[in-house]
Amino acid sequence: MPEKNTPITMKDIARELKVSVATVSRALKNSPRISAKRRDEIRRYAEEHNFSPNIIAESLRNRRVIKVIGVIVPQFTHFYFSSVLSGIEEEADKYGYRILVAQSLEQYDREVEVCRSFYENKVCGILVSQAINTSKYDHFTDLINKNVPLVFFDRICTGMNTCRVVVDDYMGAFSAVEYLIKTGCRHIAYYGSSMNLEISKNRYNGWHDALRKHGIDPDSCVKRFCDNREHAERITPEVLNMEDRPDAFFAVNDDTAIGIMYTAKHMGLRIPEDISVCGFTNGQRAIACDPMLTTVEQNGKEVGRQAASILIGKAEGRIPLDKIEKRVVRTRLVVRGSTK
Amino acid sequence: MPEKNTPITMKDIARELKVSVATVSRALKNSPRISAKRRDEIRRYAEEHNFSPNIIAESLRNRRVIKVIGVIVPQFTHFYFSSVLSGIEEEADKYGYRILVAQSLEQYDREVEVCRSFYENKVCGILVSQAINTSKYDHFTDLINKNVPLVFFDRICTGMNTCRVVVDDYMGAFSAVEYLIKTGCRHIAYYGSSMNLEISKNRYNGWHDALRKHGIDPDSCVKRFCDNREHAERITPEVLNMEDRPDAFFAVNDDTAIGIMYTAKHMGLRIPEDISVCGFTNGQRAIACDPMLTTVEQNGKEVGRQAASILIGKAEGRIPLDKIEKRVVRTRLVVRGSTK
Repeated sequence: MPEKNTPITMKDIARELKVSVATVSRALKNSPRISAKRRDEIRRYAEEHNFSPNIIAESLRNRRVIKVIGVIVPQFTHFYFSSVLSGIEEEADKYGYRILVAQSLEQYDREVEVCRSFYENKVCGILVSQAINTSKYDHFTDLINKNVPLVFFDRICTGMNTCRVVVDDYMGAFSAVEYLIKTGCRHIAYYGSSMNLEISKNRYNGWHDALRKHGIDPDSCVKRFCDNREHAERITPEVLNMEDRPDAFFAVNDDTAIGIMYTAKHMGLRIPEDISVCGFTNGQRAIACDPMLTTVEQNGKEVGRQAASILIGKAEGRIPLDKIEKRVVRTRLVVRGSTK
Repeated sequence: MPEKNTPITMKDIARELKVSVATVSRALKNSPRISAKRRDEIRRYAEEHNFSPNIIAESLRNRRVIKVIGVIVPQFTHFYFSSVLSGIEEEADKYGYRILVAQSLEQYDREVEVCRSFYENKVCGILVSQAINTSKYDHFTDLINKNVPLVFFDRICTGMNTCRVVVDDYMGAFSAVEYLIKTGCRHIAYYGSSMNLEISKNRYNGWHDALRKHGIDPDSCVKRFCDNREHAERITPEVLNMEDRPDAFFAVNDDTAIGIMYTAKHMGLRIPEDISVCGFTNGQRAIACDPMLTTVEQNGKEVGRQAASILIGKAEGRIPLDKIEKRVVRTRLVVRGSTK
């Protein structure tokens, strides 16, 4: 063992404490990859034995600055994402963290660039809802390899096994469709996105299984790939002119549901007497339309809180860096005037 | 003059270049308080004469980290603020800046705390729309005294003379009310916030002056302090039951306008045949309601871009730190189905 007051190396510390040099290095860098207990033990030993105090001082100095979390969303003006952001900010604030935010604007290149710059800004982790057509994941695996904790929310990365927070899309859709059936609807049309995203598949399956449970053949019901109002207003007249027209619609978001509802109203049909309409989100639009929309509430704020709490847990060593934590936030059916 | 290769002091540099020691210090810290030309001259001289390279290296290293702007808004989920944020982020991204964001949640204490923590995080400036009841400004003057550039947007600080970006609330209101008059309305009610905020005063004055210009006595028209839907739904029945009831309403935001419109519809009045309704914002609600709302568009994205461009100009020395820059972004009347 080296003499006290003689500078020692990481190798010396590793040998003495029977750990690897990598572990010593992580402890001195304050990495969350090792337990707080082990880290403190190594740091105390290093200090007592006069290990290059600059490195310790620097890591201590940096610790304050790096109480920053990076957040990437497709766009701020989407109500759901702004409510997730508000949940993240409130949770982060509780633990003294601030948030750096950026929009991918649905562009893969911008997402990659933001990851790089967040890393350069020394964030202690990144929360991300990925761009709709991101299909390469190097920028994410790169961060994980550099020990930057990563947590996905809403639009999760199916190409990787990572921490994630989602809402129970399946149960949300299932209970909405079950409610429509219980209020007397038998032909419940489905308007949803293409099946690239997990959330689309889950909402479709919820619709499908609720029909099956109640003895309705899903194949007898109208299904359309449609996830915005403009498109809904274009294709709905033809659907409503069918001989066996639907008596209800389940749409994957509020915007689409509002398009269906107004088209039906302008064709002289009564909502909800002739047609019931149910959306998914419960954003500001849902109470601005007339009648107000029955919809599945995605609790964005709670999703944000949970995602931030996983990330902070990892940054502070309470959750091991290599643990894949997955959480599901409950949805809630909000019944209003657009259904019976 | 000290010999080359002998370390020199800031005093030496100041004497040689005929500037104050404070100016040398600012130049070496890359402060935006001095011109880029002067700064480069001092830094070049310091480098050539072997001035403590550590300080220069450190300030250079920090420069990258401090390409961060702090942004404070009352809340993320308010559509207008999320569109301002998106404009800020896009402008900042162009210049390689990232944004730290926080919500005051309309709490003065939280606003103070966020200012402090942004300062600790070494942001190169702060953009802020203040909490509704902030009436002490020490936290803002403190930042200015510490040479942190500050730019207000939307809810500007009337207690201080600072940089600001606002929309032309007066002209927005004026042209909306003039449009109502030109489409035949004579009794145009005003629903607005109390006059604490600049924006309320300006919108009220726009309504007032448009009436006067067209020979209508503002005192003959209904005026109410009301700025949300719930309140509008409570007080509007009485207004619509008046003998000389209004044939139009101008409301300071879309939410209030929608409350007026639905109350009128449910009382059996036709929109716009019996009653015209005009809002202010043009958020997502304005196109979700039925009929769609005529409203004054506040270009939040442009407000965000302009505010960020002033701040970055100051951080990079293109705009002197003590220059009070004020910009006004044009509003635009968007005519839809709620007016004739």
